[in-house]
Amino acid sequence: MDEEWIKTTDKKIINLIRLTRKNTLDYINKDINVSTKTTRKDLVTNVDKSNEQFLVNNIREIDPKSKILGEEGFGDNVNSMSGHVWIIDPIDGTMNFVKEKNHFAIMLALYIDGKGILGYILDVMQNKLYHGIFGKVYENDKEIFSPKNISLNNGLMGMSAPLLINDYDNMQSIAHKSSGVRIYGSAGIQFISVIKGELIGYISHLKPWDIAAGKVMCDSLGITVTTIDGNALDMVSSETVLIATKIAHKEILDLVK
Amino acid sequence: MDEEWIKTTDKKIINLIRLTRKNTLDYINKDINVSTKTTRKDLVTNVDKSNEQFLVNNIREIDPKSKILGEEGFGDNVNSMSGHVWIIDPIDGTMNFVKEKNHFAIMLALYIDGKGILGYILDVMQNKLYHGIFGKVYENDKEIFSPKNISLNNGLMGMSAPLLINDYDNMQSIAHKSSGVRIYGSAGIQFISVIKGELIGYISHLKPWDIAAGKVMCDSLGITVTTIDGNALDMVSSETVLIATKIAHKEILDLVK
Repeated sequence: MDEEWIKTTDKKIINLIRLTRKNTLDYINKDINVSTKTTRKDLVTNVDKSNEQFLVNNIREIDPKSKILGEEGFGDNVNSMSGHVWIIDPIDGTMNFVKEKNHFAIMLALYIDGKGILGYILDVMQNKLYHGIFGKVYENDKEIFSPKNISLNNGLMGMSAPLLINDYDNMQSIAHKSSGVRIYGSAGIQFISVIKGELIGYISHLKPWDIAAGKVMCDSLGITVTTIDGNALDMVSSETVLIATKIAHKEILDLVK
Repeated sequence: MDEEWIKTTDKKIINLIRLTRKNTLDYINKDINVSTKTTRKDLVTNVDKSNEQFLVNNIREIDPKSKILGEEGFGDNVNSMSGHVWIIDPIDGTMNFVKEKNHFAIMLALYIDGKGILGYILDVMQNKLYHGIFGKVYENDKEIFSPKNISLNNGLMGMSAPLLINDYDNMQSIAHKSSGVRIYGSAGIQFISVIKGELIGYISHLKPWDIAAGKVMCDSLGITVTTIDGNALDMVSSETVLIATKIAHKEILDLVK
């Protein structure tokens, strides 16, 4: 692993994300063009597409031999994590972007041979970039340290509404044992809350681009990220994902089984 | 109604809320002293108490003949809304205050003979004061206008987790018909989202101090606030409260019945 290359690339990516934010804000008060994908609650906009195209084009220049996995399909068809793999979520929380114009994120990560190397989650409206590199995590320029290793009954859990309503994997019991449930509607925003220690965990059915950036930072902060069965993520499949402080992670696995 | 008195009082209250914020921030990184009230999820801290005491003492000077209804009991025993009634929530979202140090509010309202005259919700960590007076609503100094009158299937609904999990009043069906559910854990923060048009509504079991300030602003913005049965609030009882845009309010009442 070439440390100099990673440092230089990191600077380029931070600049690239700032430019993508600018594009997003330029669009936000004009007409956003919304279409549905798989269901009426699964949205895509012209901004998701334009951001992803912009990110893919720039990453092709920054790291020409890499593969790129992007939510909107402008990247490559990625089936394995070998070599350099960039994972992009051009707008995470598109429903929030459309309805709230708040609480959405731009996410980006670099994995090399399956190992998370760089991770970025930008809370666009707060203009806060959460950023992982060389085992450290930053909120803009300020280092963030590991959150307390808190048990389930002492912490707030992030969840997705469908899991909670349908009580998949004993979700209501997990909610009940926790100090309370929070639902923000964006994996990126929920990851940020876990990274900052506001929530002790998060459970949701997620795609690789929802997980990739947050996982890099969680790994550095001692926050466990697995499937809801406690298995390692392969980073190319959709999974119900359990993110939690070590103690809570173990307690939740016991409740799921 | 003496307009000059209201204007002068408004300036004093804004100043008072800013001072209360300062007190809160002074405490936040020292040891917060937490106790439980009715259940392990119903918290009170030394900061709730100290803020309420401070607010009550100052309101006694600003408006000596008024009655004061405060969450922590430093005010009066208020059974009717006749005359001047101040309603105080010294920390709304105490669980968030304790666990997240984020997403909590200070709320204050003045009702005169049952009519909402002044309303204030301070998002403490964002330092944004939402503020209603003379039929107008402001975010700090910037006027906020009525959100779009959106139907349930086009908007995000705020809810409390217990109502959703237990499916009270057909809550899961309401969630399903909406564009999605958001749970923030603070009535004040949820009210702000409705006032800004990020959410089209909010349903929760609330006390007078959770409702009073937000209702003043909702009334000015054409957002309907009633009990979940569609009845007027008496402002001295605990109720399951339905706050929503006019169209969504009607649609939700049909689902509840």
